[in-house]
Amino acid sequence: MMTAEEYIQSLRDLGPRKVYLLGELVSNPVDHPIIRPSVNCCAMTYRLAEMPEHENLMQATSALTGKKINRFANLYQSTDDLIKKVKMQRLVGNMTGACFQRCVGMDALNAMWSTTHEMDLKHGTGYHERFRRYVTAWEEKDWTVDGCMTDPKGNRSRGPSQQKDPDLFVHVVEKKNDGVVVRGAKMHQTGIVNSHEILVMPTLTLGAEDRDYAVAFAVPANDESLLYIYGRQSCDTRKLESTKVDVGNIRYGGQEAIVIFNDTFVPWERVFMCGEHDFSGMLVERFAGYHRQSYGGCKVGNGDILIGAAAATADYNGVTKASHIRDKIIEMVHLNETLFSCGIACSAMGRKTASGNYLIDMMLANVCKQNVTRFPYEMARLAQDIAGGLMVTMPSDADFNSPVTGPWCEKMMAGDDAYPTRHRQRMLRLIEAMTLGAVAVGYLTESMHGAGSPQAQRIMIQRLANLEHKKALARRICGIDPDGLL
Amino acid sequence: MMTAEEYIQSLRDLGPRKVYLLGELVSNPVDHPIIRPSVNCCAMTYRLAEMPEHENLMQATSALTGKKINRFANLYQSTDDLIKKVKMQRLVGNMTGACFQRCVGMDALNAMWSTTHEMDLKHGTGYHERFRRYVTAWEEKDWTVDGCMTDPKGNRSRGPSQQKDPDLFVHVVEKKNDGVVVRGAKMHQTGIVNSHEILVMPTLTLGAEDRDYAVAFAVPANDESLLYIYGRQSCDTRKLESTKVDVGNIRYGGQEAIVIFNDTFVPWERVFMCGEHDFSGMLVERFAGYHRQSYGGCKVGNGDILIGAAAATADYNGVTKASHIRDKIIEMVHLNETLFSCGIACSAMGRKTASGNYLIDMMLANVCKQNVTRFPYEMARLAQDIAGGLMVTMPSDADFNSPVTGPWCEKMMAGDDAYPTRHRQRMLRLIEAMTLGAVAVGYLTESMHGAGSPQAQRIMIQRLANLEHKKALARRICGIDPDGLL
Amino acid sequence: MMTAEEYIQSLRDLGPRKVYLLGELVSNPVDHPIIRPSVNCCAMTYRLAEMPEHENLMQATSALTGKKINRFANLYQSTDDLIKKVKMQRLVGNMTGACFQRCVGMDALNAMWSTTHEMDLKHGTGYHERFRRYVTAWEEKDWTVDGCMTDPKGNRSRGPSQQKDPDLFVHVVEKKNDGVVVRGAKMHQTGIVNSHEILVMPTLTLGAEDRDYAVAFAVPANDESLLYIYGRQSCDTRKLESTKVDVGNIRYGGQEAIVIFNDTFVPWERVFMCGEHDFSGMLVERFAGYHRQSYGGCKVGNGDILIGAAAATADYNGVTKASHIRDKIIEMVHLNETLFSCGIACSAMGRKTASGNYLIDMMLANVCKQNVTRFPYEMARLAQDIAGGLMVTMPSDADFNSPVTGPWCEKMMAGDDAYPTRHRQRMLRLIEAMTLGAVAVGYLTESMHGAGSPQAQRIMIQRLANLEHKKALARRICGIDPDGLL
Amino acid sequence: MMTAEEYIQSLRDLGPRKVYLLGELVSNPVDHPIIRPSVNCCAMTYRLAEMPEHENLMQATSALTGKKINRFANLYQSTDDLIKKVKMQRLVGNMTGACFQRCVGMDALNAMWSTTHEMDLKHGTGYHERFRRYVTAWEEKDWTVDGCMTDPKGNRSRGPSQQKDPDLFVHVVEKKNDGVVVRGAKMHQTGIVNSHEILVMPTLTLGAEDRDYAVAFAVPANDESLLYIYGRQSCDTRKLESTKVDVGNIRYGGQEAIVIFNDTFVPWERVFMCGEHDFSGMLVERFAGYHRQSYGGCKVGNGDILIGAAAATADYNGVTKASHIRDKIIEMVHLNETLFSCGIACSAMGRKTASGNYLIDMMLANVCKQNVTRFPYEMARLAQDIAGGLMVTMPSDADFNSPVTGPWCEKMMAGDDAYPTRHRQRMLRLIEAMTLGAVAVGYLTESMHGAGSPQAQRIMIQRLANLEHKKALARRICGIDPDGLL
Repeated sequence: MMTAEEYIQSLRDLGPRKVYLLGELVSNPVDHPIIRPSVNCCAMTYRLAEMPEHENLMQATSALTGKKINRFANLYQSTDDLIKKVKMQRLVGNMTGACFQRCVGMDALNAMWSTTHEMDLKHGTGYHERFRRYVTAWEEKDWTVDGCMTDPKGNRSRGPSQQKDPDLFVHVVEKKNDGVVVRGAKMHQTGIVNSHEILVMPTLTLGAEDRDYAVAFAVPANDESLLYIYGRQSCDTRKLESTKVDVGNIRYGGQEAIVIFNDTFVPWERVFMCGEHDFSGMLVERFAGYHRQSYGGCKVGNGDILIGAAAATADYNGVTKASHIRDKIIEMVHLNETLFSCGIACSAMGRKTASGNYLIDMMLANVCKQNVTRFPYEMARLAQDIAGGLMVTMPSDADFNSPVTGPWCEKMMAGDDAYPTRHRQRMLRLIEAMTLGAVAVGYLTESMHGAGSPQAQRIMIQRLANLEHKKALARRICGIDPDGLL
Repeated sequence: MMTAEEYIQSLRDLGPRKVYLLGELVSNPVDHPIIRPSVNCCAMTYRLAEMPEHENLMQATSALTGKKINRFANLYQSTDDLIKKVKMQRLVGNMTGACFQRCVGMDALNAMWSTTHEMDLKHGTGYHERFRRYVTAWEEKDWTVDGCMTDPKGNRSRGPSQQKDPDLFVHVVEKKNDGVVVRGAKMHQTGIVNSHEILVMPTLTLGAEDRDYAVAFAVPANDESLLYIYGRQSCDTRKLESTKVDVGNIRYGGQEAIVIFNDTFVPWERVFMCGEHDFSGMLVERFAGYHRQSYGGCKVGNGDILIGAAAATADYNGVTKASHIRDKIIEMVHLNETLFSCGIACSAMGRKTASGNYLIDMMLANVCKQNVTRFPYEMARLAQDIAGGLMVTMPSDADFNSPVTGPWCEKMMAGDDAYPTRHRQRMLRLIEAMTLGAVAVGYLTESMHGAGSPQAQRIMIQRLANLEHKKALARRICGIDPDGLL
Repeated sequence: MMTAEEYIQSLRDLGPRKVYLLGELVSNPVDHPIIRPSVNCCAMTYRLAEMPEHENLMQATSALTGKKINRFANLYQSTDDLIKKVKMQRLVGNMTGACFQRCVGMDALNAMWSTTHEMDLKHGTGYHERFRRYVTAWEEKDWTVDGCMTDPKGNRSRGPSQQKDPDLFVHVVEKKNDGVVVRGAKMHQTGIVNSHEILVMPTLTLGAEDRDYAVAFAVPANDESLLYIYGRQSCDTRKLESTKVDVGNIRYGGQEAIVIFNDTFVPWERVFMCGEHDFSGMLVERFAGYHRQSYGGCKVGNGDILIGAAAATADYNGVTKASHIRDKIIEMVHLNETLFSCGIACSAMGRKTASGNYLIDMMLANVCKQNVTRFPYEMARLAQDIAGGLMVTMPSDADFNSPVTGPWCEKMMAGDDAYPTRHRQRMLRLIEAMTLGAVAVGYLTESMHGAGSPQAQRIMIQRLANLEHKKALARRICGIDPDGLL
Repeated sequence: MMTAEEYIQSLRDLGPRKVYLLGELVSNPVDHPIIRPSVNCCAMTYRLAEMPEHENLMQATSALTGKKINRFANLYQSTDDLIKKVKMQRLVGNMTGACFQRCVGMDALNAMWSTTHEMDLKHGTGYHERFRRYVTAWEEKDWTVDGCMTDPKGNRSRGPSQQKDPDLFVHVVEKKNDGVVVRGAKMHQTGIVNSHEILVMPTLTLGAEDRDYAVAFAVPANDESLLYIYGRQSCDTRKLESTKVDVGNIRYGGQEAIVIFNDTFVPWERVFMCGEHDFSGMLVERFAGYHRQSYGGCKVGNGDILIGAAAATADYNGVTKASHIRDKIIEMVHLNETLFSCGIACSAMGRKTASGNYLIDMMLANVCKQNVTRFPYEMARLAQDIAGGLMVTMPSDADFNSPVTGPWCEKMMAGDDAYPTRHRQRMLRLIEAMTLGAVAVGYLTESMHGAGSPQAQRIMIQRLANLEHKKALARRICGIDPDGLL
């Protein structure tokens, strides 16, 4: 396993990549002030694994080699493993207050594992063995791998081959003896610039007409063909300012970028699906299922911080004992723990796949994510309520530091005099960051769209609802069908 | 284990009890048409245990004797046991569409088990051994035991000894050589008339001044000193009509009654707390915790039926494919599975007590119940939306059966002609029953107040929230406290 | 104007009608104990008009004759008139705690008034003059008129002429020299048995193929061809018991019945649409619009009572000062006044029609009703929360009156001793009645489906939303379209 | 009346003011790129008044001089005037998509008008006449006046004189022959840097011990004693970038600043309250009431834009016809029009004050604002749902403009090819701006805390609820009190 420092250095060691940010090529992404907080965030998954007190959650025993590995590279081997994953995510969420990015690869790993196995069973292909070798290296080298799914999609009412521009979904443009050439892009890639490897999957269930789009493969993150365009997020440039106080979350942050596959060559050894469109649905659903589970951990961990920030602000404001404030904090806790319950439940109800690793309960994982598309928003609203208006009218830290305005800021921004004004300032900036600012994208919009937008979960809930069984239960109870029991 | 039939006969065998209903003494409660559906409902816990396909959920192996027992008499021996409990409750809820009553005793059993153990450790008393003997008989005889907690309470802003009338909480009025004499009443006793035994606990955390109220004990349900007054519920008298169709749930129902302890004598062997007020809080909280878990099973089971009824009605109305109908059914499923997730999660996160049985995670159990005070109401609202107005304007079954009006009812109440009008009639009656009628008390109001009203859970959530830890997390993230990690 | 007593006698004077209830012919509906509360409720619209202190709201000056008339027979002559309508409905809702039924006719009157005018303008028909004569008699005789719209509809995915049974929508079966013969039924007829006249309208927008279904007309309620089947509602038979306490709302109630038009003959003078299918949509939308406004008055009036009952129960329980109780009551008030705001706003934004009377703002009226399909349910949930479980476990009034159980009920059901137990009993029964019992249909399910189910309002909201205008605003703000202003 | 251009020039003409922003003194606030959008926004209130098509809403006839004036300087003379105010605010909100700031002064004007009148009646003071002279100038000169209320407040659980630092509320530090000297600060001052005048009021109901804090007065915005510190808001520095596309709302924005009264001298002619603490409550409540009404206009106007942006994005994404998208847009419209209903209703229910101007209905105005603290957040959540994740992962406009990345952005960010990619880009930036970015503070957090935080409204709702009347209604209905009517 790598240490956090080794991880950070390993990213520098990837060498020059074509990463564009704010219109400019970034020669050294790792040390760019807008990008670095996201590197720190992912590095936390390494740092915590070094700490004995977190070993139980952060480390696992490899199912392949029996060695100790970072749990982020783990094949889920039991429901207990699935539960520990969620608890680990809550922990890392607690320590970063932002999206730490490394879950996507972990979830892709597990989805690909069982899907390649079942694909081989049906089609007689050899993907699973290839993938096993890939996973062995992954565990060994303790990679951060970007699980790469969402295509640009163009007009959402049309499939891949119906788009005017065929490149709006990643597809195979040429098959060669030694590999394939792919073209397209993947959007919203969380943490991709902080990854060693990119593991690409199709984005939706495909029919035979979209066979060329049924492609899964891995490429090193420093492949020359790749072009990265870094997404801009709310308040990103505050990270460029001389003081970090106004960023709110002063050290950690998320990352979303677009990656372009500009005729990327992939050797066969790294191709894990190529034309088996009938397994695209399984792969997508399993990956999405695992990742919907994940949100019951990481966002809960972030939510703990938002609750803590709201509670601390109530102290600073002198209103800790106001019944409506107490009640709002209780409501935040209640919502947050409901999300955690969903993350835990879909884990505890998991089952073994044919390939040996464990799959979450798909219904409950979708239910989990569906709640995540709602509750953090309400928690953010409550936090803003508790914070008071100062959260959005407070002068800049530069004004706090100015000899002219600083003393006035100190004097007039004071709350309960048991606490320094500067603590209140920082805590309000943190709430701003999580609800409007630098990490709000991770806490809110990612909660909405990450691992699939709300409607995607609703479609799955409908499919898994077994309404016919429920109707039969109802018919018996009202006497349409015979009871036969009592 | 008893069969369902043996159970029903065993209630008759209890002999004459003072049960009052609608102002009259009921000589034979078991066969009274208003009471019988609740007997059937509880009997289902016996009937399903006889069925091989449900053995895994319905039976357990006794921790005391190693014998096979009904899971409703089981000491929870693992988190898996806790999970199975919830799944069993969902199953029985599916088969009854109503409150099957027997959980209260099961939860009281487990709360009393660990509390007597810890009480003995501190006070050197011998309650646990006594209770073990009692439980051994319970398992052996496969009793239904009424867990008996809620006192009348009088003026809620005053404690037991501050009430004008000292009997508004059950208390010891005399201690004798061979036992104690108690007086008072317990309200809202679910299934008490269908129980063999009554296990009484205090209703709230008590101080030294309320020492006499800190009493726990068991009495046989046919003790002569007891007086039962049966609560009336919405549409109860429809059960007295010649046709059962209008009851909606035609065979099963709930039961709530008040029991008066009119100077009841309890021998010491059956006394499990007597004055140890410092353990009243633990007993109440553990019982409540277990019972809040239970709601994540039984009400989910009932919810399945309501969803099934709504979906079937959509079929009958010819609107199955309408997108808004589909979406409302998805929402019902989502809410119901969220409740289930909470039931499962507090089980999976359970821990072993000092006495050996397992306790649920208290935070998550309270979160579970808090959601139960909300979601069934929204599900009921959605079901009424899907059902359409006919649910509440439909003529009586007598009108359907009348030679004059019957043909008009058949003709005008028809929906999609693929289904008989009479099916639509029955299904609408079922939705009425669950949202306004005979089982709405069980599905809705009991969801609100059973195992403690919403505010009781909020107080627990606040106490367990560990806000100081969350504040510390927030302080580190915004830079008030040192990071020290990255 | 009639007095309340004259009104009640006038119903008796209608003579024998074929009204069926619980499978039996009811010879004198007015004095039947299940029906009488609904008569009392409608009679309140007459009684309040007699009271000088309510004259301003309850009376209006006829636009046709200049005479003082009951406002329930009024053509809306200004936005002030529309506002007074809503305030009148809140007042009557306050005095009855139930649906007083007479609004349907008033709203039908105004919808028919402007639609017949516009129909004549286009088709050269003479319906408006006929209808003016009818309205003149209506005002003069101070009728209660049942506005009669909802057909059985059969399979909801098919139109009238696509049904297997052509009678599932009211239609003309024969045109004669002196009138038309109609056949079919109308469902959910609020207050029809308490009406002097029935004013029939089509139930949806019709195409040319459904021309025969485009028929509007009036018949006297005692027409021999009519058959009424009274709908049964939750707890209806409690009204038959010797004590009325358990009914909750002891004197007032709603009424829903089905009416069969068994080849009813209507003379031309009373026919107001016959084949003009292109105006069916206008008639339906305007009636629905007015009626959706109405819900912003009557249900608010009922809501006031539920709030009062919850607040009084809090007093009786001794928890008036508990912050969570206070907060829940505030929330109930807030929701109720939001509904009132919607009722007032669609009135204040009303506009004059070509025929001279005033139409509400259609968007806001639909928004009003959409909120009514939600908030009363939440208010009912909060009221049940505040009430406590006793609301659904309380023994019958017969048990309170019994010499054996009565003293125990008095003793154990006591709350704060500043209030008699019997007050608590009655108040809890009232909350039960409004949320589960005899008037819950009116307060809840009618709020859902009356004046159109929720989806009907959503379709209207979509149609009236003018999204193109909103898109244009957005395009200008983000710079796609030129600003041109600053 | 001033033209928009004259208004902007008049701000320049105010001369040097001590305005600090991002730690620096801003010599010319009007033309600072971060401030200018807020100037444009306020200027819109002048520009629209110049346009004949908006004259009816934007202009009024002065109650003092009979001259045509800008409605933002108007004394409300009727309920129709109150309604027009709300419609005007919706219009300006439509044209700016941001907070246009000028309402605060208008609402302060009307609150001060009636309060000074009633103060004079009781105390024999001459404030009203003074204020009349001030208002006459205001109308004449068409000022933008900052209504200035919220003090820093320090520890919220203590009153002004209980704070350790007496300056945490504005107070009189010296009374002189020719005027008073005041010290303190006001927070969250919307638009203060764009105002000609500052009209200061106390922030809460004061007791005799806080007499020195009961002070109201006006000062010119360029008074030398004043120090302004500009609040920083989400994404404020995007306005400094070379392209404005990423700002989202490219031309308009809000403004919040803190103003320090550093021993400001105010001549008596401009003092409107000085020690009459018993009228502080009336002034605060009336101002708050008017301003809570205002939110039913301006935020609805902003909401229209958010709806339009969401609907346009749905077009660009090719999902306009998806039923769940349609339904979410309907929900947004429904919520927005509910807010409008509340704004209209409290206006239509207004009443004349003793001083002659009109006051809104206080209950309904508080209900209006309470809804505003909720619905915009849900609308923002729905807009983010409809927008899709690209809203927060899209590269900067600089990347769109770069020769390297620009073509890839154009290609891969394309939606439905019927629309340019750049339109999609701008529209997504607008949604970002309103929900997370530059105008989210105005649309969301200001909706929460402007005109008083949610709890402030709840306290008012409780006070105005007349629960005793509601209890009496309930007692009559359940038979505790006599009916006496029927």
